[in-house]
Amino acid sequence: MIVRVTRGELVESAHEVAACVADSRGAVIWSSGDIDRPVYLRSAAKPFIAAAVVASGAAARYGFDDEEVAVIAASHGGEPGHVNAVRRILAKIGLGPSDLRCGSHAPSYAPAAAALAAAGEAPSPLHNNCSGKHAGILAMCVRLGFELDSYLEPGHPAQRLILELCARLADEDAEKLPLGIDGCGIPVYATSLRRSARAFARFATLDAVDEADAEALERVRSAMQAEPWYVAGTRRFDSALIETTRGRIVGKAGAEGVHGSALVREGLGAVLKVADGALRAAAPSAVALLANLGAFDPGEAAALAEFATPAVCNVAGTPVGRIGALV
Amino acid sequence: MIVRVTRGELVESAHEVAACVADSRGAVIWSSGDIDRPVYLRSAAKPFIAAAVVASGAAARYGFDDEEVAVIAASHGGEPGHVNAVRRILAKIGLGPSDLRCGSHAPSYAPAAAALAAAGEAPSPLHNNCSGKHAGILAMCVRLGFELDSYLEPGHPAQRLILELCARLADEDAEKLPLGIDGCGIPVYATSLRRSARAFARFATLDAVDEADAEALERVRSAMQAEPWYVAGTRRFDSALIETTRGRIVGKAGAEGVHGSALVREGLGAVLKVADGALRAAAPSAVALLANLGAFDPGEAAALAEFATPAVCNVAGTPVGRIGALV
Repeated sequence: MIVRVTRGELVESAHEVAACVADSRGAVIWSSGDIDRPVYLRSAAKPFIAAAVVASGAAARYGFDDEEVAVIAASHGGEPGHVNAVRRILAKIGLGPSDLRCGSHAPSYAPAAAALAAAGEAPSPLHNNCSGKHAGILAMCVRLGFELDSYLEPGHPAQRLILELCARLADEDAEKLPLGIDGCGIPVYATSLRRSARAFARFATLDAVDEADAEALERVRSAMQAEPWYVAGTRRFDSALIETTRGRIVGKAGAEGVHGSALVREGLGAVLKVADGALRAAAPSAVALLANLGAFDPGEAAALAEFATPAVCNVAGTPVGRIGALV
Repeated sequence: MIVRVTRGELVESAHEVAACVADSRGAVIWSSGDIDRPVYLRSAAKPFIAAAVVASGAAARYGFDDEEVAVIAASHGGEPGHVNAVRRILAKIGLGPSDLRCGSHAPSYAPAAAALAAAGEAPSPLHNNCSGKHAGILAMCVRLGFELDSYLEPGHPAQRLILELCARLADEDAEKLPLGIDGCGIPVYATSLRRSARAFARFATLDAVDEADAEALERVRSAMQAEPWYVAGTRRFDSALIETTRGRIVGKAGAEGVHGSALVREGLGAVLKVADGALRAAAPSAVALLANLGAFDPGEAAALAEFATPAVCNVAGTPVGRIGALV
């Protein structure tokens, strides 16, 4: 797949994209590019991390609602509703924002960042797009009696449980997965697009996984379907994708141009990686890939046009080019 | 050429880079990738635009000093010194910031943006990284009696003079150059890396150009050599490149991963384009290309290491990977 960025009459820049579509048994339905190279899933793995939180018993024990489970699986925009959901999780487990180890950055939703600055407030760890995930992992630690301070360490028992669940979904050996460190300090694992497409198919079907994993994945999936705004936020692609398809496609983006989708109706997983890591190419290629699979009902692809073929604008806001993907 | 972005043990993302090194007669000394595809030079063409301003007689008539000429050729960080230089240009020609049509954005040098926000001030057109160029074009208009309001239009006589000078340097026909619109609203032209390398070689040598162009290019080049901070700013690559090589290499970056260098000692031009447009790959590939040409004296490449092989850091500031180019 290729994503072209035009300006005037010319293609100014282009992004190569590798992608794989598979079922829950690992059969590859469609692919493009190298699907066997290990790829860090980054935040695209958050639904699986959230499933590990649920599997620990924390969601049931502390009574997390759908908004809270969805924000654990989120890369959120730091909007007030997101921040409040994370605050509620922390309050339910008797902890506070200072227990989060994700670091602070300004809300990624620009109007929320502007409002915070206008109020003279500095960004806190709650505004970090990963704060829900960190609060969820802390809930897991409290539930299972694990040490709190060291929860980011790869050898911490919470991280081991997360990695083992992720490995089971991808038919990988948790001991052999290459590890890196994510922007928020958490360990990230790499697996191939071939295997991660299988994992997303299992998230879609709850098939080919054990009963406990299926139950946890179902809880996360239904929360993301019920509360898509908490998965990303206002005018963000994953929220729009889930909402537009009424939960039939549950998508999750990751940094460096990764995107994974669970196609509930088709029982498939679709995962892609922009080779150069460009964020701007991820949503256009995800929409093109899903459209090519026939996964959209009439009108749905058009409703996602602002993500599929965004305009390139100059500082004054005038469109001077366009981004679009070719499958 | 390729630029690799690592995280942990793996290459997470990679950028392809095309590049061409040529002399002032157009002989290609070295190349990589497709050097005949048209590429918008974007802000890498600013030294040539500044030369058109000088050629109009404006710099002599209004007494622009080296700082002012350098800022006309700059993509500056919006630091107070840059803003003051642009203000001085406008004052010398009897105009003000409201005559600039570049639009406003926050200073691209983050501490300057933070200081502006802390002072409760909104960004003005003066902070736009292109404000020097716009002020220079206005000076050209005042000098030659051209209409001011329409100076961004491709048919405006100032834009025609600019385009004709750029075309002469690249042995192109100004009437046939593909045009787009830049982020600041100005027309941008596309030419091949083969021809733009030739143009940068002419900027380096003042060879194979007519006397008036040579005189104007020399004034711009010597201003950039004398005042490198005004070309970009604090901890910015082009300023560091010019300063580290004591003006022997005059470099200018453009948006979407373009970079051009005039190698004064070698009499060569070196121009590159990151295929996907990534800013993060431009300086690493420029340093690798220049090092491969033997253009650095001992210690100079090491002095530019923070631009050649920058660390990838997480939100907490911990290095978790690295960017580096292979020629």
